[in-house]
Order: sequence, then structure tokens, then C-alpha cells
Amino acid sequence: MPQTSLMMTLQFSSSGTPVNVQAKHFLIPGLGRYDHKYSPKLPSKFPKTSIFNSHQIPNPILHQPPVNQSVAAIVFGDGSESRLYPLTKRRSEGAIPIASNYRLIDAVVSNCINSNINKIYALTQFNSTSLNSHLSRAYSVASLGKEGFVEVIAAYQSPEDQGWFQGTADAIRRCLWVLEEYPVAEFLVLPGHHLYKMDYQRVIESHRNRKSDITIVASNGITKRDQDPGVGVLKINTENQVMQYSLKSNKEPVNYAVVEAYLFEGYWEDMRSIEAFYQANMECIKKLNTGYNSFCDRDSPVYTIPRNLPPTVVNDAMITDSVIGDGCILNRCKIKSTVVGMRTKIRDGAIIEDSVIMGSDVYQIEDGRESSIKSTSVPIGIGENTEIRKAIVDKNARIGKNVKIINKDNVEEGDREANGYIISGRIMVVLRSAEIPDNSIL
Amino acid sequence: MPQTSLMMTLQFSSSGTPVNVQAKHFLIPGLGRYDHKYSPKLPSKFPKTSIFNSHQIPNPILHQPPVNQSVAAIVFGDGSESRLYPLTKRRSEGAIPIASNYRLIDAVVSNCINSNINKIYALTQFNSTSLNSHLSRAYSVASLGKEGFVEVIAAYQSPEDQGWFQGTADAIRRCLWVLEEYPVAEFLVLPGHHLYKMDYQRVIESHRNRKSDITIVASNGITKRDQDPGVGVLKINTENQVMQYSLKSNKEPVNYAVVEAYLFEGYWEDMRSIEAFYQANMECIKKLNTGYNSFCDRDSPVYTIPRNLPPTVVNDAMITDSVIGDGCILNRCKIKSTVVGMRTKIRDGAIIEDSVIMGSDVYQIEDGRESSIKSTSVPIGIGENTEIRKAIVDKNARIGKNVKIINKDNVEEGDREANGYIISGRIMVVLRSAEIPDNSIL
Amino acid sequence: MPQTSLMMTLQFSSSGTPVNVQAKHFLIPGLGRYDHKYSPKLPSKFPKTSIFNSHQIPNPILHQPPVNQSVAAIVFGDGSESRLYPLTKRRSEGAIPIASNYRLIDAVVSNCINSNINKIYALTQFNSTSLNSHLSRAYSVASLGKEGFVEVIAAYQSPEDQGWFQGTADAIRRCLWVLEEYPVAEFLVLPGHHLYKMDYQRVIESHRNRKSDITIVASNGITKRDQDPGVGVLKINTENQVMQYSLKSNKEPVNYAVVEAYLFEGYWEDMRSIEAFYQANMECIKKLNTGYNSFCDRDSPVYTIPRNLPPTVVNDAMITDSVIGDGCILNRCKIKSTVVGMRTKIRDGAIIEDSVIMGSDVYQIEDGRESSIKSTSVPIGIGENTEIRKAIVDKNARIGKNVKIINKDNVEEGDREANGYIISGRIMVVLRSAEIPDNSIL
Amino acid sequence: MPQTSLMMTLQFSSSGTPVNVQAKHFLIPGLGRYDHKYSPKLPSKFPKTSIFNSHQIPNPILHQPPVNQSVAAIVFGDGSESRLYPLTKRRSEGAIPIASNYRLIDAVVSNCINSNINKIYALTQFNSTSLNSHLSRAYSVASLGKEGFVEVIAAYQSPEDQGWFQGTADAIRRCLWVLEEYPVAEFLVLPGHHLYKMDYQRVIESHRNRKSDITIVASNGITKRDQDPGVGVLKINTENQVMQYSLKSNKEPVNYAVVEAYLFEGYWEDMRSIEAFYQANMECIKKLNTGYNSFCDRDSPVYTIPRNLPPTVVNDAMITDSVIGDGCILNRCKIKSTVVGMRTKIRDGAIIEDSVIMGSDVYQIEDGRESSIKSTSVPIGIGENTEIRKAIVDKNARIGKNVKIINKDNVEEGDREANGYIISGRIMVVLRSAEIPDNSIL
Repeated sequence: MPQTSLMMTLQFSSSGTPVNVQAKHFLIPGLGRYDHKYSPKLPSKFPKTSIFNSHQIPNPILHQPPVNQSVAAIVFGDGSESRLYPLTKRRSEGAIPIASNYRLIDAVVSNCINSNINKIYALTQFNSTSLNSHLSRAYSVASLGKEGFVEVIAAYQSPEDQGWFQGTADAIRRCLWVLEEYPVAEFLVLPGHHLYKMDYQRVIESHRNRKSDITIVASNGITKRDQDPGVGVLKINTENQVMQYSLKSNKEPVNYAVVEAYLFEGYWEDMRSIEAFYQANMECIKKLNTGYNSFCDRDSPVYTIPRNLPPTVVNDAMITDSVIGDGCILNRCKIKSTVVGMRTKIRDGAIIEDSVIMGSDVYQIEDGRESSIKSTSVPIGIGENTEIRKAIVDKNARIGKNVKIINKDNVEEGDREANGYIISGRIMVVLRSAEIPDNSIL
Repeated sequence: MPQTSLMMTLQFSSSGTPVNVQAKHFLIPGLGRYDHKYSPKLPSKFPKTSIFNSHQIPNPILHQPPVNQSVAAIVFGDGSESRLYPLTKRRSEGAIPIASNYRLIDAVVSNCINSNINKIYALTQFNSTSLNSHLSRAYSVASLGKEGFVEVIAAYQSPEDQGWFQGTADAIRRCLWVLEEYPVAEFLVLPGHHLYKMDYQRVIESHRNRKSDITIVASNGITKRDQDPGVGVLKINTENQVMQYSLKSNKEPVNYAVVEAYLFEGYWEDMRSIEAFYQANMECIKKLNTGYNSFCDRDSPVYTIPRNLPPTVVNDAMITDSVIGDGCILNRCKIKSTVVGMRTKIRDGAIIEDSVIMGSDVYQIEDGRESSIKSTSVPIGIGENTEIRKAIVDKNARIGKNVKIINKDNVEEGDREANGYIISGRIMVVLRSAEIPDNSIL
Repeated sequence: MPQTSLMMTLQFSSSGTPVNVQAKHFLIPGLGRYDHKYSPKLPSKFPKTSIFNSHQIPNPILHQPPVNQSVAAIVFGDGSESRLYPLTKRRSEGAIPIASNYRLIDAVVSNCINSNINKIYALTQFNSTSLNSHLSRAYSVASLGKEGFVEVIAAYQSPEDQGWFQGTADAIRRCLWVLEEYPVAEFLVLPGHHLYKMDYQRVIESHRNRKSDITIVASNGITKRDQDPGVGVLKINTENQVMQYSLKSNKEPVNYAVVEAYLFEGYWEDMRSIEAFYQANMECIKKLNTGYNSFCDRDSPVYTIPRNLPPTVVNDAMITDSVIGDGCILNRCKIKSTVVGMRTKIRDGAIIEDSVIMGSDVYQIEDGRESSIKSTSVPIGIGENTEIRKAIVDKNARIGKNVKIINKDNVEEGDREANGYIISGRIMVVLRSAEIPDNSIL
Repeated sequence: MPQTSLMMTLQFSSSGTPVNVQAKHFLIPGLGRYDHKYSPKLPSKFPKTSIFNSHQIPNPILHQPPVNQSVAAIVFGDGSESRLYPLTKRRSEGAIPIASNYRLIDAVVSNCINSNINKIYALTQFNSTSLNSHLSRAYSVASLGKEGFVEVIAAYQSPEDQGWFQGTADAIRRCLWVLEEYPVAEFLVLPGHHLYKMDYQRVIESHRNRKSDITIVASNGITKRDQDPGVGVLKINTENQVMQYSLKSNKEPVNYAVVEAYLFEGYWEDMRSIEAFYQANMECIKKLNTGYNSFCDRDSPVYTIPRNLPPTVVNDAMITDSVIGDGCILNRCKIKSTVVGMRTKIRDGAIIEDSVIMGSDVYQIEDGRESSIKSTSVPIGIGENTEIRKAIVDKNARIGKNVKIINKDNVEEGDREANGYIISGRIMVVLRSAEIPDNSIL
């Protein structure tokens, strides 16, 4: 019987010794494709943090078929409902804007395309509309070539199953019949809320050469954030075989299958909190300013919805260590260490520092033509003489004049959702479409 | 406050008197767009067969904006889970193949495009993957022009709501924030499982001219099938105002808003059963053979996934009163009164009559290259000397040699799903990918 | 016999009296569609500045068919070979970059799309590859909807005709059989090198209402540039009928057909010289800075090739009265009154004023990976401490360090093409891909 | 200096000895990319039948870069103006319809796509509009993926060159600056009027492994048509190196560069005459009927303009050894050994044998709505009781009732163009849009 194998991304943190690494992807063999009655031995509930047992049938890939025919990617676009709230109030995690011009999921999907993988399934059930809309506009056909697709599989009811997806393994199991459409031999399982640049072809090559059942891609970068207790730890031997994994408090030995680790050295951020998301944006500025070419590389660009926006208009601005998205309007203002998103309008006298301004979905006409906008309401964008420091301002927010968004009381965590913002890790987060009246001091 | 209005399709059957008509679409005003807190007075559970109360604010559309800017269509792709079973085992109703080259939902979506409506939302939760896949491939950008889209809104979980859509009204209410993205003034609500050709621009014109709150599109064709007790009945006065509606046993007066009926004369089929679906296919043959140009009209074609298939190859066939999809392979066979779907392969000596053969998603290579297909298994298509009468053969079925699918015992209803078929209204229905062994007589 | 009519853009300058206007478009009836042998009475050579006689058959358009079915636009993408040289060295006029993100022809094509005209033929023979490449990437299908297209008709040889197009009338005559493909009733003839925003639907409405044979769209703005003797003059009566036209020294009465003028009041620039092109760019800055929404208007955007570029990265820049294209890299620099094109890289210490920097087609990797770029060569972009004033820098130019492009000798006209630039009207024009060595002072 | 190499298709016929083969493609190195002043040593006029001298610089390809990055194809779409006349009256050779659903050039372009080559330049100057239109609709983006394109380069005028392309070498030389846009290392030169299926990746592999300067792809099939004196002959040694080539009466030794032959065994037809074109269509029927999967293979399909046509409608037809394109209407008729093109309408009593019916671009509405069609004119398609044998009927032809197209006088060659047809090699060729009146006997 033909076999498939699977690469999957989990969250493991490193314990700081050479044999322990942060593990993110792995390969799982044994998902049969041609036999509808075949039931892979997946646990009924497959938490994101467990490794499940698998078939012992050796992977029969001998001829090393081309990656674009034999590998399909399964992207989970949802992540958690709560950890990035309120950015996820109306969107799934993968649809959060990042780095001025992109959505979070673009990083992983672009990695796939640049790795010559063009069969991509995005599984989703939480605020899935946002992700569906983004993916269908960004990846319809142009970047994917013949036989390529990004197909969204939303949670659904069927005669056999009336419930929502019960975690990752359940989602895969219920979608197996869809995944069978193309005769792929290996699955690459990827969370959609990670930010990194990787050539998956090398992972696949390693997986094939070492005849793994499962290959786990692991990061051995040791950073402060990696010590997060919520992240798993892998113990590997000198040949990069996985001996033990620990998730939260559980430590479990690996005694089933051939599980290999593929070590990855580069930048790899998991958006596990508002703070991680904020830091990732700051990191983008730094990388782009120091010539890091992850977004500029002609051979492996980051894809997203193609745009036709007018050029950014600058009246009189001092801009330092910042990135500016397409089609902004920047009047007499100062911008420092800030990510400015598409169509952002910043008015005279504004000062923005250390912030993420997500921009706007539309240009608001200010000549009174659109009568439904009351003339007294605050227009979209950043008002005159407003000051913003260490804040995330979500899309279409209306920040009035003489506003200060500076966390004046130095609050660590605060829920002011009724007032249009929350505070998380001292970062001010203004909600999508929120209106902050003139002269407010937050 | 700006107002929107809504056209909606319900199921009403006519009672045979002039003032009673079969009602299918109507317009519902009062769905505010700009106020998130606005809660339209929809009942918590909006059954497909009720008319709900609405705001009394008169529709302020004076300038008659262009249809492609002011109207959005909401298509319900699901219908019921059970009435077209087993065709809906892996698909939503809208994704069922019909008339050789199409899917059911293509009829309604093409009506929209041909009526200059290019903002189309498809709401779905039942086996939604099939519909999502079809719509994204068929309507990505090419047929829809600037600002146009077919956007699938699958049922989803959000912080505010963890459940599935609870009927049509609930689905609309939960999607209101998405629908607000474009400033449309009228919604046209359409079931995706109806087959008819209508210029919705005339409905909109009537709705505007008569300043309706709700416009219900109603058929006054009296046919045998319309006497189905499951279909509603409208009572209208001489000015086409709706006085009363009855659904199942309920009769309710209309005393709220201005509800107008728009009468439609043409062919209009609701796929309410396997038999209705079968009859609709037979009707397609008849219409196409008598020059009815619903599918041939250059000015209002039926759209679907664009294809690149090779021409149909005919070795030696007698074909009568039939339609043949793209890329078939017809050997020495007789075909009569049959809808033959894309890539159907019919082998020597086969006789097909009064049937719907849905065809195949792929060409099966028969030279032994694809080793995973056991040489002993029945190949996709219709085997040598096989006879099929009054049957629906779903996609990718493998019908062996010397098979007879003739309902030999003249069964009315029968569930032989384990054997790969069921019988419904004396029609034999062979399941998708089912294998019927050589010499079987069903 | 069915008739078509034609709108056409010519160059007329106004003489300053109320009855004289600058004329740019007109309608010409009498181009039969169904009769291949039909030869419209066009002169053998139809100079851009003459009005030809036409059939007297009245225009039978009664029902006012929808614009998107009855009107086709014919865009001439070439203009003259010489007046914008060297910007036309490798491109036709329509393909010249303008306003950071666009090509010149995008203005006219976007006017068509925004006027609901989606059948667009672009006739070209001069450096046509550039235009063909741009149009096919920018307007393949996405902005044009069903039945829409931008079709490039390059000059060609055929059994009947071996020569190049001999002017506008000859080009139209030789393409008549192509134009017949769709049953349009009116042609709108447009030069591709004009910059303006017009709703052609109003022109068509006027043409139909007044039953014109020919409608000429004319500007009555009186500006310094309009006094150019190379531009024609129309004499009209009080009912806007054209009585006489003069082209260069010729004055000819209009005594044939019903020729009407449609007066247009807005901004309308003809790129008749390097200076006009330069001024048009400066005008774009001004309009965008004062909130003029020609490029920002959601309802009538300017289309072009959709892009996926990373955000603009700014290290430390003071930017005044300028527009910045997508994906630039701006180090420690000062930019004033300048159009900065896509992917422009400006290095530390650079000062740019009153200039048009067209940017680059690619990002040059500077880490030595691309071995074919000699390390000693000047990289693409603007070098350290370089100063540029009143210059046009074409795409992919390599400007070294400590360069001054300031027209130091205040030359009016100069041909230094061998050194990578020319001077036209005191404007410095650096050629495409030119290399200006370090420390040059021009 | 970086070097490129070139694969090119010429016409050589075999002389029947083992060392002589029919040669079609070859590789030519030495076309520099980065140096604009570089002038490859091509003769000023490069006839299709000569091999030119080349640079001796060895091909520096060591790393074997991926085919989709390092190879570009140059397709010549024109061929000769005369040999396929009248099929080329309004089209270039590449745009001639073949095998019901395709255009001739689709075969070569699909070979490229299936060989993972997605940078394709089509050079054309003869009736180029037809080819341009087809290629832009068929290959815009969908089949080509990121960075892929089919770019039409029509002959053009420039400041440096006012003339038409003077043969193949001149066309390439004048387009070199365009071809430089992407850093490809090898060019594959292909005529667009050949019909065959080849994996060019094997040719490239051979070219690289043998470090050829030029690789000529040659057929050693010996058929009657190969003895055509207009086809060249290659003399090769036992290691497949080319020693001598002869074109027409010239025999020239190869003493310059490393020229290798790549031998190809399969079917390969050159459309060098009306007869060859006719035979190629007959061959298509045979191959498709015997299960030859060149058009059915999912892994390497033939691409063309994607279609949305309705199914073929068959009233009562006997069809033998034929292929039927999409969306035909076949009434009570007999069809044998015939290629029936898209939208063909065949009326009651018609008999078609051994013919190629190209079909129609549109459906003609026959209900009198389109008033411009005189009711007395012959409708598009094949009339009642008409008989057609050994004929090619071009697109949109109107064949009346009781017509016989049978070459009644058994004419070998005849020019009846004024009557709507010609005779070539005893094959009747009815012109595009020709009208053959009722009761005609040809």
C-alpha cells in the first residue's frame, strides 16, 4: 500500500544543552491515501503538543519525485483564539497584518512557494472568513502555476461528523479524503502564525535521505523567549535522532518510529503573545534596515495580495529606522522605529515612536462627498499633534487630534475594550475601527 | 442612517388561484451597515420558510445607483444535508455536477454575473470544502472584473459565537460585519441549488420603483411538482402586494412592511429530491436539443471552472437525444437520452439510456504505469457490454463488464450503500468512486 | 448596414477666443463592421492632425446600448519616436514610467476601465515590446471582467500589406477586421501619452444625444504650453459645433458631417516634450500633496501591474513635497520635490531636489553572490554624498559616489549620450542603465 | 564574461544512412547577456536553413541550475507566409486551429511548460495579431506560475532599426536586449508550427553533460514526407557529433564549435504544406482513438485558452473514428474520420468524411434577434443534406443546404478564392467566414 509521510510543526523550547533543541516541524508517515477505510492511528484528540504513534511501514520513496508533485503543505491558520486578542477579534491569527504590507500567513505560504511546493491546504475554523478572503485574493493562480493551489478547508458538518475540528489531528483526519485528491507522498504540516524563512526542500531532502518516519524541524537558537515554559523540548542524540520530547510538564521517550530532527539556525519567531507580535514587527524594521533581504530577495519574495496603490505622499516628514507601506499620506510629522501600514494617513504635528500602525483598508474621502460620514466624527488615521509611543494601532482606527497614546499610568495589563483599546505587556493596543476622541490621553 | 434592503429566495408553492404564487426571492430592508451595534430584528432562528419583520424606515434609494455597486448577492450553497443524499455525501448541494460540464451553483452565480452583480457571498457550512474549492477555481477573478468577487463564508467560531449557523437568518446576522465591507444598499438572497435563468436587474428595478421593503420573487407556473406540500404559498392582491403567506401548515398574514411580489414566468427548478435532480438533467437535454439557448447564449453564458480538456474521442457510437461533456472517450456504444459528464469513458458494447453519467475527475492511465492501481480492479468508467437505464452514476465510479444497472426488481426505494448504490424513486444512484464488479445485475 | 462611430483624440491648441478650443477626441461614424469589402473613405495617409471625411449615414443608435457592450477604445501607444528621446530609446511612449508606480499609458487605460469600457485595442509599432509586456502583465484579466480585454495590435505584415502602419488612419484601416470581432457601435480613439482623468461615459452620452457623426473632445484651458504652435485650433459656434479646424499653418472649414465639440475643463497634459513630461511629474507631486484624489480614489483608481514589493525602508530621511514609490530603500538622505520610483535605493548623504528618479526593475544583491557584477562597478541607485537637481534619472541607472548632477554649466540642450545623459530644456536626463562614475560633476 | 547557449530548431531531412538524421533543434552558445555593446557573430541575414559560426568560449555551466531559472524558450510563431495559405490569410501559422480544441502553437508552448520552462518569448511579425491574442488569453498567468510568462515580441521600429525582422537570426539579435531581462544561461529556439511531444529537460541535460556549444535535436524517423528536398540533412559520427550539414543543394562541413546531435524517436510533424497539416489532423484522430495519451495525459496536458462551453448536444448522430470539440451541436448526421472543431453546428442529413471542420468563434443566434444577419444569408455551420469529403473548412464558414464539397472534378491544385475556397493537393480548403450557397457542388 502506498504510504505518505508528514512534516509537522510543533512548539518545543530548548533546554540549553547540545542535545536539546526547539522543535517545530516533523514528518509523520503512514497516512494512507488510496484506501478510504484506512484509519491512521491518530489519537481521537491530537493536541498541538503531542507526537502520535505511526505506522511502521517504511517510506517507499526511492525515486525522489519532484517536490512540486510529491509534497503537499497543510497550514493551520488559526492558532489560538485568545493569545493575540484583540487582534483576533475579527480575524484568525494568520490574517493579522504584519510588516506594513503583509498578513502573518504570507510568510509560511511564501516559504512553500519559494520551496517549489504549490499544493497548499489551509485548515481553519476560527474567524475563518478573514483568512479565506486573504488567501483567495493573494494566491488565486498567479503565483502557483499549473496544478498549484492554496485551498482553504474550513471546518464543516457532514453526515459522518457534526462537530468542529477537535485539534490538529482531528482536522487532518477529517480532511484526509480531500488531501487524497492529489497523489502526494509527503505532507508538510506548518502553523500559519510563525515568522521565518526556510527552504523546505532541504528538510525534505534530509527526510528522504535518512528514511525518517517523522522529521521534526527544530531551532537551537537560545533566546529569552525560548525559555517560555509553554514550549516543548526535544532531546536528541549525536546523530540528530529524537530520543525524548517534553511538552509542558510531560516528558515522554520516543520509542516507536524513526524520528529525526532537522536543525534550523535562522530567525524563527512564534507569535505566541501580543508582545511577541510586537517584537517581531520591531525585528522586521531592524532586518530591513540592515539590508537583510528576506523581503527584498527577487528569488524568494514574500507574496501577498497584489496591489495597485498610489505612491506614498510625503509633505514634510522626518523618518528614522522605520518601514512605510504602500500608499501612505504623511504630512508634517516625525516617525521613528515604527511599522507604518498601507494607506496610513498621519496628519500635521503627529509624532509616532516604537509603534505598529496597521493602516487602513480604504481611503476616506474628506471632501464631504460621502454624506454618511458625520462631519463631527474622527476621520481614519492619526490626528493632528497626536503622540503615539509603544502602541499597536489596528486597521481603520480613528485617532483624534491632540491625543496621547503613551500608557501614561504605565499599566502592565489592562482591558479598556469599551474605550477602544487594551494594554498587554505595557503595549497599548488600539482596536480595529476604534475611535479615540480628540484630546484623549491614554 | 443608511439602510440596506434584501432580496431573498424562499420556497412557496402556488395554490392555483390567481392571487397565489410560488414565492422564491424577496427583499428585506433595514439591515444597517455602519453601526456595529445595530441589531436587525431577525428572529433568533430564521427558518428558510418564514418571513421576518423588518424596520419601517423607508428605503432611501433615489438615485438608482448602478447594480454592480449597490447590490450584493448572498448565496446559500448548502441546502439540506439529506434530501439529495448520497450525492451530498462528500459535497454540499451547490457542488453537485449537472448538465455534463457544470456544478449546480454555477446557475445562480452565472445569473448574478450576467445581471451585472459581481459581489457575491456564498454562505456554507455543510461539506463546505467542495463548494469552496469549486468557487475559488471557477470565479477567482476572470469573470468578475474590478471590485468583483465570489467570497465563501464558511461557518466559523469567534469569541462571540462558538456555534454553527442556526439557519439562514443566523448565518446572515453573523456575517453582517463581513457584508459591511462594501457599501451595498441591497442584498439579493439566493439558494444555490435552484436551476433557472433570470435577469435580476429587473427584480431590482421593480423593487426600487415600487419602494418595497421586501420583494419576493415568485413563480406562478403550476406544475405537478409545485404541489409539493413542503413548498410555501403566497397570497397576493391585484397589485402584487403580498397579503398572506403559508408555510407548511402555518398561514400568516403580512402586516408589517411593504412586501411586494415579483412574478417570474420561466423554467425554475428546485432540487428538492433525487427525482427533481434527475428530471432537471433530462430537461437540460430537451432544452439543449430544441435550441433553447440558456447554455449557448454568448451574452449570458453559464460560467464554471475553465477547462483545457482534449476533444471527445468517438470510435463508433450511435448517440441520440443526449449531451456530451468535454473530453469523453466513447468506444463502440449506444447512448440515448443521457447526460454524459466530463472525461466519461464508455467501453465497447455498452448501452446507456435515460441516465446521468457524471464522468471523472481524472483520466486513468491504463498502461500500467500507475502501479498503485491493481490490475484486477475495475477501471474508472463504464465497462464492456454493460447496460445502464434510468440511473445516476456519480463521479469516478468504476462500473465493470457485463453489468446491468436496470433496477431489475423495480424497487421504489432502497439503501444498498454498502454495495455502492441506493435506489430513490426507482432511480438507481451509484455512489462516487463506487466499484460495481463485473457481471453484477442491480 | 450597421454603422459604427468613432471618438478620436487629436491635438488642437486654443486661440484664446470663446469659440476656439483645444481639441483632443472626436467621434467618426461610418466604419462598417460586417462587410469585409467595405472601405471607409479614409485618406491613404491619415496624419494625426487631420479630420477625414466620413459616411453620411446617420448613426442608428436608438436604444443607447450599455457602454461596455457598444464602445471599444483604440489607444495609440506610440506617439512620436523622437520628442521624448532618450526616454523612448527602448520603449514606446506609453511605457515610460511616471508618478513612481505607473506607466504613462495606465492613465488612459484606467480612464477606460473606470468609464466601464473594457474592450481596449492598443495599436503600436515603435519599440512595441515594452508596451506589450506592460499591458499583458497589468491588464490580463483581473481588472477587465467577462468579455473584457486589452489587446495589443502590433504592426504586422500580411499577404495584402507588407508595410508598417502609415499613420493613425492607416493603422485603423488595417486593423478593421480585428475590430470587427466584437459588434461595437462606437470607437473611442485615444492617444496613450496623455495624462488626465475623464469619464468617457459623458462624452459618449453627449455624442449620442446630439447624434454627432464626429465628437471632438476639446480642452479650453489656456496655459502657456497650449500656445505651442504644433497644436491644432478648433473654431466652434455657440452650439459647440465645429466650424473650422487649423493644424499648423492649414486652416480648413468643416463641411461634411455633423462634428460636435465636447468641452473638457480639467487638467490635461500632453507629453509633447521632455519638459512637458518633467512638468507632469512635478504636477503629480503637487496634486497628491494637496489631496487631489486622482490616484487615491477608490471608485476610479489608476491601474497598473499589481505589485508585491516589501515596504519602503527608511533609515534616516528628511522628505519634503515628494512622492515615494513602493519598496524603496532610503538611507540618511534629503529628498525634496522629487518623484521617487519603485525600488529606488538612495545612499547616505545623498541630496535629491526637483527631480524624477524612476527607480529600478530589480533589487541588486550586494553581498557578492551574483558574481557577474564586478565589484568595481557602480551599483544601481544613487551613491553616497551624491547631489541631484532638476534631473530625470531613468530606470536602473547607476549613479556613483560624490556625483553632482546639477547642469553645472547651465546648458540648455546637450547630447552627451556616450557619457550616459543628455540635457533637454536645462533638464538633465540620465539614460536607462547608464553608469555615472564616482566623483563625476555633470 | 557570462555566456548563454541556444537550442534551435531547423529543418533537416535524413538521407537514410545511420549517420544522417533529420535535425530540428540546436544550441548556440556565445550570446552575451550583460554587455550591451556585445555583438554576437551572427550573419546579417540568418536564413532559416543555415548554421552560423559562434563564439568559442566554453559553456561555463557547472552547477546545473534549475531549468525554470536558466532556460528561456524562443518560439517563432510565423513560419512562412505562403505555404499554409489560405489558412494564414488572417493568422500567423501558430494560430491555426488544430485537433478541435487547440491552436498549432499550443503544442510547442505546452511542451515548454511540461518541461518546466516558463520563460517563453514568441517572436512574430506576420499577421501577428492573431497569435498575440491567442497567447495572451491562453497563457496569461494561470499555467505559468511565479516569474513565468509567454511574452510576444512583435517586429517593431526603433531609433536604431526601422526594418522588419530579416529572418531568424536578425529577429534574435534585435531582441537580445529584451532577452537580457532575465539572467538565463541557455536559449531553446523552437518553431511554433511543429507538432510533437518532447521533454526538453532531456535535451538540456544532454547539452550540459556533453558541454556542447550547439545541440541540434534531430529526428531519425524515415518517412515519405522526410524525403522532401526542402529539408536539411545532418551527417553525424558515432558519438552523435555533427560533421556536416546540407541544406537544399549546399553541403557544409562543421568546423567550428562543438555541435552535438540529440536524437529524438517519436512522432514529429512539420506543417510544411496544406497536405502535411491535413495529415497531422488525421493522425490526431488515430492517436486519440488508439489511446495514445498525448492530449489526455494529466501530467503533461496540452494547454490552450480555457473554455466554458456548454456540452456537445447530439440529436441523432452516427460518429466513427472522429474527435469532437467542445460545445458542438450535432443534429441527424453522419461523421466519419473527421476532426470537428469547437461550436461546430451540423444540420440534419449532413454527411462529413475525412475532413477537418474548424468550427466557429461564436454561436449564431437563429431566432432573428440579431437583425443584422439577413434572413436569406447562409447561417454559420454545415447545412441540411450537405456532403463534405476530404476537406478543410476554416472557422465561421457558412455552408448551405444540399452542398457537395467533394472535389468533383478531382482537381489537384486550384485557386477559387473568389468563390470561397481553394484546392491544394486534392484537399478542398474552404476559407474562413466563406459562404457557400445552397446546392453548390464543388
